[in-house]
Amino acid sequence: MSYPTSLPLPSVKLDHGFLAGRARLVRDTVIPWQWEALNDRIAGAERSGCVHNFQVAAGEKAGKFHGLFWQDSDLAKWIEAASYRLATHPDATLEAELDRLIATIAKAQQADGYLNTYFQLVEPANRWANLRDCHELYVAGHFIEAGVAHFTATGQRSLLDVVCKLADLIGRTFGPGPDQVPGYCGHEEIELALVKLARVTGGERYRDLALYFIEQRGQSPNYFELEAKRRGEDGKLPWHMHHDGLGTLQAARPVRDLAEPVGHAVRMMYLLAAMIDLAHDRKDAALAEQSRGLWSAIVQQHLYVTGGVGPEPHGEKFGEPFDLPADRAYAETCAAIGVVMCARRLLDLDLRGADADVMERALYNNVLAGLALDGRTYFYVNPLEVVPTVAKRRYECHLVKTQRVPWFGCACCPPNVARLFASLGAYACSQTPDGLAVHLYAGGEARFKAGNVPVRLRAQTEYPWQDRVEFRIEPAQAVEFTLQLRLPGWCRAPRLTLNGAVQEIENVAGYARLRRVWQPGDRVGLEVPMPVERVRADARVFAAAGQVALQRGPMVYCLEEVDNGPQLSALSLPRTAKLEARFVADLLGGCVVIEGTALRTPAGEALYSTETPTPAVAPLRAVPYALWANRGEGEMRLWLRET
Amino acid sequence: MSYPTSLPLPSVKLDHGFLAGRARLVRDTVIPWQWEALNDRIAGAERSGCVHNFQVAAGEKAGKFHGLFWQDSDLAKWIEAASYRLATHPDATLEAELDRLIATIAKAQQADGYLNTYFQLVEPANRWANLRDCHELYVAGHFIEAGVAHFTATGQRSLLDVVCKLADLIGRTFGPGPDQVPGYCGHEEIELALVKLARVTGGERYRDLALYFIEQRGQSPNYFELEAKRRGEDGKLPWHMHHDGLGTLQAARPVRDLAEPVGHAVRMMYLLAAMIDLAHDRKDAALAEQSRGLWSAIVQQHLYVTGGVGPEPHGEKFGEPFDLPADRAYAETCAAIGVVMCARRLLDLDLRGADADVMERALYNNVLAGLALDGRTYFYVNPLEVVPTVAKRRYECHLVKTQRVPWFGCACCPPNVARLFASLGAYACSQTPDGLAVHLYAGGEARFKAGNVPVRLRAQTEYPWQDRVEFRIEPAQAVEFTLQLRLPGWCRAPRLTLNGAVQEIENVAGYARLRRVWQPGDRVGLEVPMPVERVRADARVFAAAGQVALQRGPMVYCLEEVDNGPQLSALSLPRTAKLEARFVADLLGGCVVIEGTALRTPAGEALYSTETPTPAVAPLRAVPYALWANRGEGEMRLWLRET
Repeated sequence: MSYPTSLPLPSVKLDHGFLAGRARLVRDTVIPWQWEALNDRIAGAERSGCVHNFQVAAGEKAGKFHGLFWQDSDLAKWIEAASYRLATHPDATLEAELDRLIATIAKAQQADGYLNTYFQLVEPANRWANLRDCHELYVAGHFIEAGVAHFTATGQRSLLDVVCKLADLIGRTFGPGPDQVPGYCGHEEIELALVKLARVTGGERYRDLALYFIEQRGQSPNYFELEAKRRGEDGKLPWHMHHDGLGTLQAARPVRDLAEPVGHAVRMMYLLAAMIDLAHDRKDAALAEQSRGLWSAIVQQHLYVTGGVGPEPHGEKFGEPFDLPADRAYAETCAAIGVVMCARRLLDLDLRGADADVMERALYNNVLAGLALDGRTYFYVNPLEVVPTVAKRRYECHLVKTQRVPWFGCACCPPNVARLFASLGAYACSQTPDGLAVHLYAGGEARFKAGNVPVRLRAQTEYPWQDRVEFRIEPAQAVEFTLQLRLPGWCRAPRLTLNGAVQEIENVAGYARLRRVWQPGDRVGLEVPMPVERVRADARVFAAAGQVALQRGPMVYCLEEVDNGPQLSALSLPRTAKLEARFVADLLGGCVVIEGTALRTPAGEALYSTETPTPAVAPLRAVPYALWANRGEGEMRLWLRET
Repeated sequence: MSYPTSLPLPSVKLDHGFLAGRARLVRDTVIPWQWEALNDRIAGAERSGCVHNFQVAAGEKAGKFHGLFWQDSDLAKWIEAASYRLATHPDATLEAELDRLIATIAKAQQADGYLNTYFQLVEPANRWANLRDCHELYVAGHFIEAGVAHFTATGQRSLLDVVCKLADLIGRTFGPGPDQVPGYCGHEEIELALVKLARVTGGERYRDLALYFIEQRGQSPNYFELEAKRRGEDGKLPWHMHHDGLGTLQAARPVRDLAEPVGHAVRMMYLLAAMIDLAHDRKDAALAEQSRGLWSAIVQQHLYVTGGVGPEPHGEKFGEPFDLPADRAYAETCAAIGVVMCARRLLDLDLRGADADVMERALYNNVLAGLALDGRTYFYVNPLEVVPTVAKRRYECHLVKTQRVPWFGCACCPPNVARLFASLGAYACSQTPDGLAVHLYAGGEARFKAGNVPVRLRAQTEYPWQDRVEFRIEPAQAVEFTLQLRLPGWCRAPRLTLNGAVQEIENVAGYARLRRVWQPGDRVGLEVPMPVERVRADARVFAAAGQVALQRGPMVYCLEEVDNGPQLSALSLPRTAKLEARFVADLLGGCVVIEGTALRTPAGEALYSTETPTPAVAPLRAVPYALWANRGEGEMRLWLRET
């Protein structure tokens, strides 16, 4: 059995166009910049302390631990991102820097394999004593992902050996045995990491452990309750478990009984990702069905139009079905990355275009909004409407930033964006049993084998600004295989050509299927017309009632004050208003804007009145939501009233 | 100089119609019921402990203090309410009960006059040590109001003597002298109470002290900062002072420099009430202007359509201008009572109908919504939109109750409603230098003197359900005076008759002015037509953009799930939809409902779609907001989308 179905990273190269530009930004700017942040060398940014903590734990310097008890994970995610970068763009300096860092980490690791600078430096006596709150296995999971990435990229076992030792310690410590701890982590992550480790090492015991963590979760007697009693707690749960209790950690009931997403959104998505992985690797049809059920509930009742999830700031949680407020959207960048992760994994279970649509929606909108155009500032929280004065004043918006910031005290999102974009090739396409499936359209090329014949697939495109993708297929020799091209769900009339001749599309579950003996130089053209669309939410989404989102291709649009003036809520869009898309080369790095004529209701004399004010005609310009807040502080609004 | 300009309570009698019914409910049910609550005799209600605390402090029983450090104030407000009840409806049993309670209170009072069971029983060493947080002067203020009310009602000095002793202690303790404390209370209330005490006792020193507290507030060096330093605090402010800092207590700058309302809404309104009182009594034109400026800012930028203020739950505060969210409206019942208090006081400064309009709006909507039809349950928080599942789940709504409750741990609102309704006569009309002004229309009568001639003014009306008020003027003998009748701002075409003959209305600042020699048996008819109105908020109120509130007369309407089905946000009201008002005798104690035809957008197949759903015709029934949540739990929505 071969894992995963993504092509190896060096086999996919994004070399032109929009996504390639973002990936390059991550490679050339974000990863080096974050290295500075992790070393506390960025003025004005919140202190990270990550590298410092390891140097202290390794005995390389004196000092105290800084940060939160999951601080190490920021560094692990960065190592993962930097490793992906090495895979696609070898770089001796970065490799040497990583080697030095890994040496420090190895030195910091304790003899039995334990590795967590917070517990080593601050609470050595409390190892594994509070799985509910302290993220030890979560941090371990991120190191395991980093070790796998570093090994895959470089072939070096330096970090892989460290994380295997750590995983083996965890394997000895946790489990159903009489001397083992029947626990699991309050923040899922170790599960999907162990699957990755199993895939790369062939160590089935790691997959067994992942499955154990998932199966044990939420069983009675509840481990978190036993553990809290052991700590002498009074049974009162921490503040962030308001309303959902242990459901905040997806631990109120067994995972296989979960009927809808619950609790902390990132945890829920990481759990689901591991469930899908295990369903895939173990061919567990029941777990696959359960995962699909959860995914459907998320996509049909809990997904922002930006692809984000988790509206509740207090505990970073899922809410009631259809409760998707705009100004209080928490919609954490990491949660949207979780959506991308789950969608991509589902494509390995079954190839369904609708899942790739969700992946694209989350990637192009919520995730991309997390990163500034210059790669140096980030959003953690991604609301769909911001009035800066109000966002700064209202308590329930106190985690909303009206401008991206260089770093966070809890800095999970920036390195998460980095590792996603540094490994974007793994999301763009899949090797299938009989060929290749393309999920995301981006300028570049993929190399894969059809049978034993090496094939190069080149994609020329300015997607998402333009609607054409030109593929050139270059097998080393004529060879039969199936090429599957995603037909975006937002596209009403895709058009396919083969060597210039229009083809009838064989749409199989949202992918255009082309099976033939491919000759070197064959050309496939895919056209996905992108008129400006008005997207409406289901009537049960009360926060969007009577409003529309503008969308063109995969990009959802928003209004910004800099283009439209203040009081964006006073603007409305007549049903009949014509909207035009136009590429503006010198705006926001070059992007398509949507322009048209709206109506603006004037401010009145009195706060309340029975008069009907006469709205004035007002020009409207919308920009991609992904690119908002790159031109100074101001209002932003995604949902527009339709009149 | 005579204070106040209200008629003595026994001179105004509400005896039929809507307001009289609510006042009777308060008299016959609410006041006795609250007495049970204050004695901890109501099963299922949060414990009050109020009477218990005094019995313990008086040495009448053993036990510990229960509750918050301002717990005493609930009892004080109840005594005030019960005293008003005695004034209008003498009752020997209640009077004896009050006498016993007052004897306990007098026994609890310390020799130097100090009276606060929390500090006496829990922190005797910390008297006056934390004015910022501990509400000692606030509690004292409520006792002073109670003492004044009891004396006015009964002529007995028992409680008045207690509170004079307390006020004299405060006067010795606080002030600019070398041995005095240059402080003031974190929660305003003492100021307006001292003015009341000055008015009833003639003790000008009490008014001086009130003025001192107001003038000293927010001066540099800031007393709260000095005091915090003295307590050894690190300068970090309590959680509820998020964003506004000492502005939360209206103490960040001198009161005369306040340009807009800030901080805790009830405190702001109580401060403003005292400012207006002092401007009036001292004829301080600058303070009057300052008060009017603040009031205008409140009314033009911060007032809910229900007459509520203070949208921010975190700290119960004012927010940005025009930030008036519906689902997260905090709009505390007490804050709306503060609006009523300020509006009434402004009418003593200058008679302006617009101020009485605001008083009526707050009273008939936000305040009345605080009290169940049966008088036994209360709302503290008054949102304009509730989806129960969402309100219960979202943290920022965690103070919202979806059903009224019998009592609160912090039970400021229930006795505040009681004292307001028990003294409603003082709000209904004013003695003016040349006659009488009527502010609120209610069935009953007022007795006053025009010169030396006793006059009885009888009002026959079913207002607000019907639009006619018939006055009968019965002077003991023919006498000249001016009768001023408020012309509601919501009424486009009022009609006035004198002894059956239509009169041209002399509209002076929103009051119809009738000056003549009145004969016994003269009749004045006022008709204030009440078509159903669609009220729109200023375009800057982003939470109400594109929506209308239904209003008829003074009542603002809402939809309830019990009448309209769930998912109220899916309903919209066509601009052309005809709306009819109809009295329904057996609904909610008899009320006018608004009925018409709305459109309901059906739920869709997908969460997001480019399809335009076809709305279905749906009958709509709106009920007065004041009467919502009297028929079980369900959705409620005030603002309706207009299409």
